[in-house]
Amino acid sequence: MIVNMSDSATAEQIEHIIQRIREAGFQPHVTRGTERTIVAAVGSGGRRHEIEALSVAPGVDNVVAIAQPFKLVSRQTRPHPSVVNVRGVKIGGPEVVVIAGPCSVESREQLLETAHGVKQAGATMLRGGAYKPRTSPYEFQGLGIEALKILREARELTGLPVVTEVMSTEDVDLICEYADMLQVGARNMQNFALLRRLATAKKPILLKRGPSASVKEWLLAAEYLLSGGNDQVALCERGIKTFETGMRNTFDLAAIALAKELSHLPVVADPSHGTGKQSLIGPVSRAAIAVGADAIIVEVHPCPERALSDGPQSLDLAQFERVMRSLSSPLRAVLTPARA
Amino acid sequence: MIVNMSDSATAEQIEHIIQRIREAGFQPHVTRGTERTIVAAVGSGGRRHEIEALSVAPGVDNVVAIAQPFKLVSRQTRPHPSVVNVRGVKIGGPEVVVIAGPCSVESREQLLETAHGVKQAGATMLRGGAYKPRTSPYEFQGLGIEALKILREARELTGLPVVTEVMSTEDVDLICEYADMLQVGARNMQNFALLRRLATAKKPILLKRGPSASVKEWLLAAEYLLSGGNDQVALCERGIKTFETGMRNTFDLAAIALAKELSHLPVVADPSHGTGKQSLIGPVSRAAIAVGADAIIVEVHPCPERALSDGPQSLDLAQFERVMRSLSSPLRAVLTPARA
Amino acid sequence: MIVNMSDSATAEQIEHIIQRIREAGFQPHVTRGTERTIVAAVGSGGRRHEIEALSVAPGVDNVVAIAQPFKLVSRQTRPHPSVVNVRGVKIGGPEVVVIAGPCSVESREQLLETAHGVKQAGATMLRGGAYKPRTSPYEFQGLGIEALKILREARELTGLPVVTEVMSTEDVDLICEYADMLQVGARNMQNFALLRRLATAKKPILLKRGPSASVKEWLLAAEYLLSGGNDQVALCERGIKTFETGMRNTFDLAAIALAKELSHLPVVADPSHGTGKQSLIGPVSRAAIAVGADAIIVEVHPCPERALSDGPQSLDLAQFERVMRSLSSPLRAVLTPARA
Amino acid sequence: MIVNMSDSATAEQIEHIIQRIREAGFQPHVTRGTERTIVAAVGSGGRRHEIEALSVAPGVDNVVAIAQPFKLVSRQTRPHPSVVNVRGVKIGGPEVVVIAGPCSVESREQLLETAHGVKQAGATMLRGGAYKPRTSPYEFQGLGIEALKILREARELTGLPVVTEVMSTEDVDLICEYADMLQVGARNMQNFALLRRLATAKKPILLKRGPSASVKEWLLAAEYLLSGGNDQVALCERGIKTFETGMRNTFDLAAIALAKELSHLPVVADPSHGTGKQSLIGPVSRAAIAVGADAIIVEVHPCPERALSDGPQSLDLAQFERVMRSLSSPLRAVLTPARA
Repeated sequence: MIVNMSDSATAEQIEHIIQRIREAGFQPHVTRGTERTIVAAVGSGGRRHEIEALSVAPGVDNVVAIAQPFKLVSRQTRPHPSVVNVRGVKIGGPEVVVIAGPCSVESREQLLETAHGVKQAGATMLRGGAYKPRTSPYEFQGLGIEALKILREARELTGLPVVTEVMSTEDVDLICEYADMLQVGARNMQNFALLRRLATAKKPILLKRGPSASVKEWLLAAEYLLSGGNDQVALCERGIKTFETGMRNTFDLAAIALAKELSHLPVVADPSHGTGKQSLIGPVSRAAIAVGADAIIVEVHPCPERALSDGPQSLDLAQFERVMRSLSSPLRAVLTPARA
Repeated sequence: MIVNMSDSATAEQIEHIIQRIREAGFQPHVTRGTERTIVAAVGSGGRRHEIEALSVAPGVDNVVAIAQPFKLVSRQTRPHPSVVNVRGVKIGGPEVVVIAGPCSVESREQLLETAHGVKQAGATMLRGGAYKPRTSPYEFQGLGIEALKILREARELTGLPVVTEVMSTEDVDLICEYADMLQVGARNMQNFALLRRLATAKKPILLKRGPSASVKEWLLAAEYLLSGGNDQVALCERGIKTFETGMRNTFDLAAIALAKELSHLPVVADPSHGTGKQSLIGPVSRAAIAVGADAIIVEVHPCPERALSDGPQSLDLAQFERVMRSLSSPLRAVLTPARA
Repeated sequence: MIVNMSDSATAEQIEHIIQRIREAGFQPHVTRGTERTIVAAVGSGGRRHEIEALSVAPGVDNVVAIAQPFKLVSRQTRPHPSVVNVRGVKIGGPEVVVIAGPCSVESREQLLETAHGVKQAGATMLRGGAYKPRTSPYEFQGLGIEALKILREARELTGLPVVTEVMSTEDVDLICEYADMLQVGARNMQNFALLRRLATAKKPILLKRGPSASVKEWLLAAEYLLSGGNDQVALCERGIKTFETGMRNTFDLAAIALAKELSHLPVVADPSHGTGKQSLIGPVSRAAIAVGADAIIVEVHPCPERALSDGPQSLDLAQFERVMRSLSSPLRAVLTPARA
Repeated sequence: MIVNMSDSATAEQIEHIIQRIREAGFQPHVTRGTERTIVAAVGSGGRRHEIEALSVAPGVDNVVAIAQPFKLVSRQTRPHPSVVNVRGVKIGGPEVVVIAGPCSVESREQLLETAHGVKQAGATMLRGGAYKPRTSPYEFQGLGIEALKILREARELTGLPVVTEVMSTEDVDLICEYADMLQVGARNMQNFALLRRLATAKKPILLKRGPSASVKEWLLAAEYLLSGGNDQVALCERGIKTFETGMRNTFDLAAIALAKELSHLPVVADPSHGTGKQSLIGPVSRAAIAVGADAIIVEVHPCPERALSDGPQSLDLAQFERVMRSLSSPLRAVLTPARA
């Protein structure tokens, strides 16, 4: 880290910073310019926050961090891509994984029809919400344990591993009994109590990027999981909040490439939340694969206009089949090498 | 709600929408234009999500919501401002409340020195973190229950009621024993499991606005608390995420005025997180009061450059005194009527 | 458009709105709900702004626009994709066009080396700045007319048509003499004086999206060109400003698909400005083609670390060749049908 | 500037950077850490862009700028606040200036009624658009020279100096004949051709912040004016674009305090565009003064619901009088010292 002294810093103030850098466990290294002096804090064993706080010490203009703050998720720590194994389905391997299913489990019939349909169209994992985070308390909140049982039944019938969202530390054990992968929703990306609890769970985690989380913050959220003992983590880009109102979110496809450059973790793309618009799911799914996503997760409902949640961005089964065909073998064959 | 048919919608498609609006519990009302037809869903007892999902029905261009989705927090429901009573300190009354204290409780000495100092300067409530949400798992995470005990001691010695953050449903009971007001942090604003639990707590809640939450989403988060039974809720604006990097956040002062126009709940302003810059705390605190904030919450530390968290935005005690003097009686006297 | 009356609107206020809608050239159509009344302004010949201004009339809650405000650029007006012909190179046709070249023309040698290099690698158009918009007045501002002459020479030698930016109405005639396509830079997207002047130019226009322009505003900027008489317009997505600082901009790839759904105009993708990062140009170029872009425009410099502008996001010639190979025939063959 | 080498940088790569820093006119200064090496470019006479471009040199991780890029607008260059004199009205002096008038000049009657009304209520300058930047080509574009003549007449009758927007270099001479201050609109903040032309105009400039411009970019736009010879520049904050849709823009009041900390230029606040909502103009105007604005500029129209532009955010004369009373002497007396 670098402490950038102001033009008018006195020798005494510079000396104070040198002293404080030593106290924080770093070696100070001074560069005196014609106009200003900078003091680097060198070494890896020191306490970063003590250097950050020096931005308010007398004579200091600002403090600049040089190294990335994450460690275990970094490509520098582990240069080869990680593979997350969800009951045999490998996210991060040579095949692009397709996860599909309804936003919410609404009934046994609705889920089973969807599960069979998406499997037939080529999906290899099933999604479905049991506990739903909803902006308004008056919206459908999910069927809870009843939905978990239906999901388990769907897995037994179709063989598709199941991912479902966990919203609370209190539900972790229960959901682990039923699901094969636990999703941390975008709005819980920095629910650190939940992350710490999931770090000790024995299931892989799908970690959605928060709607206003930078890639760095997203990787640091994953760092909570890895540093707590769970390295079966797939990141999921699902769009960020911007001024654009023509789509539900701004789908940050380039962030998928950036995350894969910075980290060894696999990345899943969620075109349904990323755009919020049925008609865009096809093109942005193709773009997600082209940019290097290891999987896509798509909302599918037998009758979107009757969905209890996320209808406007859900595909019906016929639409999903068409999207799948547009992603089919030749394209994936061509794109997969390009991803390597 | 209004269903806006596309130019090419057929009579059959329009009839289908009319039928679906009836099924959802509303009365349909059709307006045929020269180019397009719109169908309003009239009434208050229907299921809104069923109308929203019609955006993907054949022949529909989009669906527009007319009424606000929140109820109990609305000024239309309760026209007079609410007052939140925190152990006798009234947020939302004629006096502007000043809440001050360190980001984190770091030690008994640090907190007691701060508590006495801010009281002497005129603060009427004490803040201090026991459980800290931190972007990185390698940063200081708070002293936990030890901090709660120190906070209680500070309250006994100074008489200042205490507000501290709760990060997990599992900590609610414990924190209720020690603190007078529970803070929901910005990153937990849409942690709905936590909101539902706090709706049944017997303490007032300070609900921070999420860094990418619209005012509407913020009010809906409060609606979780009120609809669950807790109407002792103060909103807290603490800055939103934008492209501007010159400050930690963009402090949305106008949103304070907007929130007070839409809702009866009192609003607290947090200039420390709102700007992240010591030198701006004074001017933006004055602006917050001028725009109608009912309270301000300010980070104060005996030695910001040694703070374990948020040093760059913390005031030392002398700086806090100067800010308080700049807000003192004449200004507040003048501003308070203007707020009415 | 729909005028949404407040709950407490009086019969007199509603009558006033009905009257004003008639004055503005629309037919009023009233829907009385259980709680509130809405009045639609029906017809296409009226004055929209007069209805918008009613949002401040007594008893009005808000005014909601239903129809899109653009006309000539709309798919509803012209359902088939437009093709922009730049001296024989067709943007919007079955082939994906690749435009490449340096950010700025720095010297005859630099440009000619680049032009020959990108042509050999497969580019079909040449870019190069003569007049440069620079954030600081102390940065390199371009070689002006000297650069235009060099660009013309490069075209003569390579046959590649040339696109260059125009920053001022006063330069339009001059640049039209030398270049084959005129670029409106992102920061000038709403320079309406410039747009009006270019509407009468006899050259195709490359219209970059402003860094904070919604897709709707971008299409309305294009509407200035078409309504003024120039329908040879290609849109260009080059990234928007968001909170994310890990890349120069947030590259809004989904907006390419959205723009093509709303408009018949072809869309060019600029991965260089879209990400600002050399290492991401390859993956996001592939994604741009997959999502439906008709062309990509890429910054290439013989020695990026010596570039006078945009070095960090420029490819050198060897890197550009590698990117081109990754986009080459099989991929493009597969992707091109998918775009249809 | 600091060149941050990657962990794996070789001695040869570091040597190359040292050499390139010398070539760019700086002295290199090397700090070798335990994990990585940084090389500072020391001195003030070098070419910054050559260092920036090193971010793509082999072995380099990134390049960090330390010093601010602006000079003449900086407080470090000129520590005392500048005063902009508009025909005797001083922006930046001890008195808060109030500029008021319609968005557009629509007719002689409309403007004169407004001018007399705002003067009576206490405004000391008049605003009014003659050339209007409009998002859609189908909206009212201003009366042009006819409006300029009406503005001059209003000045003669009321004595209020006049500010009006200039959209094109071609209009500068004409507008200088009629107006006392020229406004650069938000969408033209980085129209560098226009800025360069205005740098040689003999009139003061009101420079609006672009909707996605950082404070740094805004100051660099002003730097174009000062470095070109015009130091009569007032900055104007008018809101930025964010995800929040409850108001037209997010009014960045804290940026006013930040701009005044970084620069000696006076800052004007525009609550009309800043919020887009009539009902919020009063509170945010008070906040703007409290945070340190030197002036406010407010849209006023005799009948907002009939305004040809910006009706929803315009005050009528009675509303403007009420806002003025709420800002009146006692408040301003108290606040003015606080601003010093």
